[in-house]
Amino acid sequence: MDEAGFIAGDWGTSHLRLVLCNAHGDALDSRTGPGAAQTRGLDTGTQDAAARFTDTFASLTARWQASYGVLPAVLSGMVGSTIGWIQAPYVACPAEPGQIADACVAVRDGQVHIVPGLSCRNRFDAPDFLRGEETQILGALQLDAALRRGSQILCLPGTHTKWVVLEAGLVREFLTAPTGEVFALLRDHSVLVRNPLGPAAEIDADAFTDGLAHFNDAPHAQLLHRLFECRSRQLGGEITAAAAEAYLSGLLIASDVHGALRLLSDSIAAPVVLVGAPPLTRLYASALGANGCEALEMDGDQASLAGLTYVQQRLSQTVIVHGV
Amino acid sequence: MDEAGFIAGDWGTSHLRLVLCNAHGDALDSRTGPGAAQTRGLDTGTQDAAARFTDTFASLTARWQASYGVLPAVLSGMVGSTIGWIQAPYVACPAEPGQIADACVAVRDGQVHIVPGLSCRNRFDAPDFLRGEETQILGALQLDAALRRGSQILCLPGTHTKWVVLEAGLVREFLTAPTGEVFALLRDHSVLVRNPLGPAAEIDADAFTDGLAHFNDAPHAQLLHRLFECRSRQLGGEITAAAAEAYLSGLLIASDVHGALRLLSDSIAAPVVLVGAPPLTRLYASALGANGCEALEMDGDQASLAGLTYVQQRLSQTVIVHGV
Repeated sequence: MDEAGFIAGDWGTSHLRLVLCNAHGDALDSRTGPGAAQTRGLDTGTQDAAARFTDTFASLTARWQASYGVLPAVLSGMVGSTIGWIQAPYVACPAEPGQIADACVAVRDGQVHIVPGLSCRNRFDAPDFLRGEETQILGALQLDAALRRGSQILCLPGTHTKWVVLEAGLVREFLTAPTGEVFALLRDHSVLVRNPLGPAAEIDADAFTDGLAHFNDAPHAQLLHRLFECRSRQLGGEITAAAAEAYLSGLLIASDVHGALRLLSDSIAAPVVLVGAPPLTRLYASALGANGCEALEMDGDQASLAGLTYVQQRLSQTVIVHGV
Repeated sequence: MDEAGFIAGDWGTSHLRLVLCNAHGDALDSRTGPGAAQTRGLDTGTQDAAARFTDTFASLTARWQASYGVLPAVLSGMVGSTIGWIQAPYVACPAEPGQIADACVAVRDGQVHIVPGLSCRNRFDAPDFLRGEETQILGALQLDAALRRGSQILCLPGTHTKWVVLEAGLVREFLTAPTGEVFALLRDHSVLVRNPLGPAAEIDADAFTDGLAHFNDAPHAQLLHRLFECRSRQLGGEITAAAAEAYLSGLLIASDVHGALRLLSDSIAAPVVLVGAPPLTRLYASALGANGCEALEMDGDQASLAGLTYVQQRLSQTVIVHGV
């Protein structure tokens, strides 16, 4: 077995995933645990919220530390927010990868580093924020050297989709679209879908494509004027509730992609790099394709691990800096 | 006291309002009762859902019928839907007012008439439906003679905002935007507002105006890319949660109004007539004004009563037909 080098952790609101890695960032072992929200509420015998994170981390990594001695760790996600272990303040864009790594906040006497989120003024001159995605951006820059040249667009689809503009390897700005959150709310709580079987396990591909195509037929229209079709096409006997769910997804992703391309891509000819869970990046790739835009898909977990590895290497002074 | 002529009723999903009227439609007395959903579930001693509506109607109007004898009644809203007393099938657009009145479905041996909803193929060639609003449309046509000439746009803002195109006094087509439903979901269930005090009793007018103005600064943008500002401007310390609620309302109504005007108003120079609850029509009037469009506001309850009166008069053959 490889020699363990460090522990990489993605500690979100509702989920923790710790990976034991060698110095190159190859995974040797992994464990899951409670998200930041749950950890905060755990009774670990201590009063202090931060101590609950310390206790949780210590108990989940005890076996590894027993085998390999004290290992450094790099964690990202909501663990660095107001509901986390300690606040890792946002780094303002434009931000270089090295700046982000150097702004990590240490806990446990420097054994554990927490990656900061990013802030910017977006295209609408509004404040914008991300946390957790910065690590996937850092990873994407490591995994795809082409991303470090010229102007590039990354899209990280999810509950809060992030559209990120890279310029010569630094994060210039980004824009948040709460597409996944709006989708889940409309699917589960509006009259639009009302699927008696509950959320579909697998998306109805034809209905998704119809949603995309119908939106793209009149892309100047506002989303609000298309949403009721999810319901009315059911009332009219055209589609089932399961298809309405996929149709809704098609409309929302088409609106997100069309709008973002118009806002961000004026002068960018390179393919958009999608970073996330493969089923979701596939849907976004379809929407980009329908807009005549090439897409490259990158697995979100791999990008995350590559980002955490980059930070660890940078912090241990062994990082190879690529053109930044 | 005036001689009672008929009973006008607005029987929606969650609310029933019955008004005792003279033959001209002037209100003499009124009562409220359970909505259609609740009525369906009532135990009135009968097994039959329809009988529960009969019983509820009979008991609420008993005093009036004791004073004035058996009075005819006209009811509109979800009482005519699958969850109602009896189904009053949708009338397809284009539809003349007389056609809508003549398609009423009678119950209780012809004492009670239920107004049908409307269906159309909308601007996107999707099926669209309304029920309850047809009565307000009929009333608006009675209350404002100018609406019976040329091409006109009515807007009935609400949970499901209806944009209606009138042509020479008939209902040519309409379009549904679930703006109010999306607003309530995002306000109450998303991360965007999170007002610890609960929904604001009164809207923050400045924040609403900011939401309108910011959307109108970049009306080509898709709504999805503006929504996160409700949260990020709070995180950035620019606005409170109460202001975020109003800002969200401004963004949504601006998107609804801007999109609908672009879709429907190409050749229409007349003011848009807003029919609904005054606090809401006022917000829509602001949004129309911000788009350089004149708006007239009409009280929704008055329009409803005028519509029910029109139907009653038509059914009793005493209707005066205005230019249709």
